[in-house]
Amino acid sequence: MTDSTTVAEATPPSETDAAKVERVRAELPATLRTVYLNAGTCGPLPRRTIAAMQAQQEQELLHGRIAPDHYPAISAAVKEVKAAVANVLHCDPTELALSRHTTDGMNIAVAGYSWQRGDEILTSNIEHPGGLYPIFLAKRRFGVRMRVADIGLGGGPTEEIVGAFERMITPRTRMLVLSHISYTTGAVLPLKAIVAMAHSHDVLVTVDAAQSYGQIPLDLHDLGVDYYACPGQKWMCGPEGTGVFYARASSLGEIEQTFVGGFSAPFGPIDYYGATFPPAAGSARFDVGSVNLPLLVGQKTSTEWIADAGEVGLDWATTRISRLGRYARQALSQLAGVRVVTPEDRMAGLLSFTVAGIDPEDLTNRLHTEHNITLRFVAQYINNPRAARIAVGFYNTEAEIDRLCEAIQVIQTIQRAL
Amino acid sequence: MTDSTTVAEATPPSETDAAKVERVRAELPATLRTVYLNAGTCGPLPRRTIAAMQAQQEQELLHGRIAPDHYPAISAAVKEVKAAVANVLHCDPTELALSRHTTDGMNIAVAGYSWQRGDEILTSNIEHPGGLYPIFLAKRRFGVRMRVADIGLGGGPTEEIVGAFERMITPRTRMLVLSHISYTTGAVLPLKAIVAMAHSHDVLVTVDAAQSYGQIPLDLHDLGVDYYACPGQKWMCGPEGTGVFYARASSLGEIEQTFVGGFSAPFGPIDYYGATFPPAAGSARFDVGSVNLPLLVGQKTSTEWIADAGEVGLDWATTRISRLGRYARQALSQLAGVRVVTPEDRMAGLLSFTVAGIDPEDLTNRLHTEHNITLRFVAQYINNPRAARIAVGFYNTEAEIDRLCEAIQVIQTIQRAL
Repeated sequence: MTDSTTVAEATPPSETDAAKVERVRAELPATLRTVYLNAGTCGPLPRRTIAAMQAQQEQELLHGRIAPDHYPAISAAVKEVKAAVANVLHCDPTELALSRHTTDGMNIAVAGYSWQRGDEILTSNIEHPGGLYPIFLAKRRFGVRMRVADIGLGGGPTEEIVGAFERMITPRTRMLVLSHISYTTGAVLPLKAIVAMAHSHDVLVTVDAAQSYGQIPLDLHDLGVDYYACPGQKWMCGPEGTGVFYARASSLGEIEQTFVGGFSAPFGPIDYYGATFPPAAGSARFDVGSVNLPLLVGQKTSTEWIADAGEVGLDWATTRISRLGRYARQALSQLAGVRVVTPEDRMAGLLSFTVAGIDPEDLTNRLHTEHNITLRFVAQYINNPRAARIAVGFYNTEAEIDRLCEAIQVIQTIQRAL
Repeated sequence: MTDSTTVAEATPPSETDAAKVERVRAELPATLRTVYLNAGTCGPLPRRTIAAMQAQQEQELLHGRIAPDHYPAISAAVKEVKAAVANVLHCDPTELALSRHTTDGMNIAVAGYSWQRGDEILTSNIEHPGGLYPIFLAKRRFGVRMRVADIGLGGGPTEEIVGAFERMITPRTRMLVLSHISYTTGAVLPLKAIVAMAHSHDVLVTVDAAQSYGQIPLDLHDLGVDYYACPGQKWMCGPEGTGVFYARASSLGEIEQTFVGGFSAPFGPIDYYGATFPPAAGSARFDVGSVNLPLLVGQKTSTEWIADAGEVGLDWATTRISRLGRYARQALSQLAGVRVVTPEDRMAGLLSFTVAGIDPEDLTNRLHTEHNITLRFVAQYINNPRAARIAVGFYNTEAEIDRLCEAIQVIQTIQRAL
């Protein structure tokens, strides 16, 4: 990334773009109440999402949830959510199951593998508990060994990152579990190259997409990843308690179902004494049971709104996130005492940074209470520092980044005066 | 059950009771739009539940979900839901985990056991797929053998039912999986005696409470059951996508976690290279990750409304359900061609019945479309017949049962004329 490119990307948006941003922000009222810099925890909700959910709730309140069309309506909504998400992920809707969150999907993949004692799972040093705890549990229950590739903060040349993983692969390695974008450092890992390397060793790849789904352009078939666990409530601005799990069609047979119910099998008679059921076709076998229809309606509404180029548009959103991320990096880097943790060569809209002499938790609390700027901090694990973290959304503005920088300077000034 | 008792129970409610029923029905608008006879699928939603959920949604829309108090608010709501449910189940809140539905709980218990090839699970002949499919999966994945005790329709003396289960127990039996109330026949099984017998053989007992939670009085510590899986959306009138799983404190150590995330462990630093985490205290270890706060608010509101004697009251509700069930049985039994499937000696408010010459699916469709009476039909498994099924709620009235009977007679008359 040259300096001239950085400057070009940091150019203020055109007038038309500014009008679009204003329209988008009006649809996301929470972005008007605070400087909203934490899609990495939860995105702001669109008005139409809440309106659609509440309309469905009114319907259920007045007419009940037991008419003969209720379950068909749920099935139709499940299909619509999967179609909307498949459009974002560039995959087939039959490769998707519904989940409550990213963590559900990580569990489906890790708990779904038939582990033998001594099998190995490889992961990195900058992972989230949602991916780590299923591995720790596989160790406890099935005697799986976990190995950790140290990829530093996730930056550096592709071949170095791929090499760091590849060196940890042994004949017993069965699965590589990693985040597409580290929630702690914001590094965007070179997933396609990592998957190709893993597959060359017959190692399955399970990906925590908590920070990538909606932050960067995605083409799952091109990436080649086996399992991809997405949240509904973060960068795609859906309700909490929603998510999607992707299992590549050709990798579906490598894992078993773990939690099953009426939705995990085709509808039909039960083979009672045979004690068997055929798994539902495709990834729908990982669906379990009845779901909250208003939640599905909300998940669909947010997803379609962001995907619709006439409203937001994925290309526009991800391009803007990347540009604003670069703008924020440049602005933060110019502040005395501020160090950006996120690798410059592998970033999008998630940035971690430290401010000399101020604890990140203290900093984020003060930015929230004194300056109405909302972000979070991340803990230290190994070599990643404890840091403040911003998630720059397509609805943010350069002016908000400037406000963040000014607020940090005010806090630094007060700190020095104490 | 003598005739005189039956008549006494069928006496019309007092004036005060009628006024209460009217007030309760006004709070459940769906009961005013149809003859609502299917709490066995989903209960009617209280106005205040939807109002509370929508207030929370408005809050999240306008103020976002990322302020420092967001996760504490979720934790508080989880605690409140568990306290409200513990009050209904007569257990300790620390014995409860949140789930999406009954089926989730059945999976937590069955998938949580460390199966050895050849271990056996015992179940009955009148179970729901939500309990059966996890068993079938344990057979497929872990070589567990399933044995089925034939308890007919679930009626008869306690010692006969207990004996039918006990005869199927072998030295390899590890778990008994059964419904407290069969969703197909409506039989209320003598759970306490069954649990005592099972425990005398060192067999754990996992119960599908889809039809018992909110239908009958419950005291889990007195019943002695190990694991009890409850739905939020049925007899307790909560949102779909909610449920609760109970693991008796003294039986908690008999099963492992299966799906885990940030909520499954105490908050704190991660033992990264140690690859281990301590399970959260009590049944909270089965909680996984972030949940939809409006759903929690809804679950809590419905539960507290039903438990509050000044509003509904559990004693009032379950007594009324039982009395109305008895009234319905008597009324249906008097119709020519109608046969009640539900065992007379083991019933509460869930009744299955057949009408000679009319397929149950056809009957339920016609009752819905031609008479605005909403119920469902259940499929035949083994010796239980394909049948229509009504779930009599505390909000139903004798007049509605009479309307059902009249409607059946009209359909019979038309049928005969064809």
